[in-house]
Amino acid sequence: MKQAPIRIIGFDPGLRRTGWGAIETISNRISFIGSGLITSNHKVDLATRLLELHTGIMEVLERYAPDEVAVEQTFVNKDAGATLKLGQARAVALLAPAQLHLPVAEYAPNAVKKTVVGVGHADKNQIQTMVKMLLPKATFDSEDAADALAIAICHAHQRGANKLKIA
Amino acid sequence: MKQAPIRIIGFDPGLRRTGWGAIETISNRISFIGSGLITSNHKVDLATRLLELHTGIMEVLERYAPDEVAVEQTFVNKDAGATLKLGQARAVALLAPAQLHLPVAEYAPNAVKKTVVGVGHADKNQIQTMVKMLLPKATFDSEDAADALAIAICHAHQRGANKLKIA
Repeated sequence: MKQAPIRIIGFDPGLRRTGWGAIETISNRISFIGSGLITSNHKVDLATRLLELHTGIMEVLERYAPDEVAVEQTFVNKDAGATLKLGQARAVALLAPAQLHLPVAEYAPNAVKKTVVGVGHADKNQIQTMVKMLLPKATFDSEDAADALAIAICHAHQRGANKLKIA
Repeated sequence: MKQAPIRIIGFDPGLRRTGWGAIETISNRISFIGSGLITSNHKVDLATRLLELHTGIMEVLERYAPDEVAVEQTFVNKDAGATLKLGQARAVALLAPAQLHLPVAEYAPNAVKKTVVGVGHADKNQIQTMVKMLLPKATFDSEDAADALAIAICHAHQRGANKLKIA
């Protein structure tokens, strides 16, 4: 029986820049579909910025029609103001797929790094290198898009299935 | 020339309980329209909770058709986890009116207290007493709804106009 591929979009949310990365997984293989960046204008008010993010995320979801969505969990750090901004962006990244009745999984940054690189404290370069190895056809213009692909890969791995192989 | 009343809805956002309060203001008078509470089920995942809040806020906005919306600013406190939850709820309270192209104003808790009670450190009882004095017909079942009415009153006052009189 032929299995249908599962399309996953990962989001790395941020108020100024939200990265997204779309992949497909079938049995134990993954392949690259697309990636990009959604930005908001830091000169406008917060409600308008959240609307810009929401509109951008909805466009990506409608264009790439994923089966499942994965969002990076907010890292609560000592800078309460930064935590708050991140939380607000993340709320929009969780809400948008929920409005489309898509299942949304959340992963802590360390879980993403551990799944993709093998260690929980990997740096940005290591993540990008591994994303390129796991998805040779992947292109990404930004760290945030690479991180979003890593989140999607993490979900492809965690959602059950077998070990991932390079597509 | 007869002036049209301006309808304002205030929101006191919270992940578990978001209070709302609707008033109308015309020249220097304010009157009570309605108030209530939108809740989310704490047993479901965050994306679903944010969707519950969003749906509830949209229902209130569509039912009461305000001209302007006011939302309480998140107080960044030492509990980063609580700050994060509040920020996520608040993002939804800002996004929903922005999606309907309504102007959204934000007020710090102390600004609301100072406008309604006269001092920035008023307690919940003082706020409820003043809301009842300023809006004799107001009914509210919860602290959150009373706070939301206070936020709406603050906006009615701050949006220009003259001093508010009791309706």
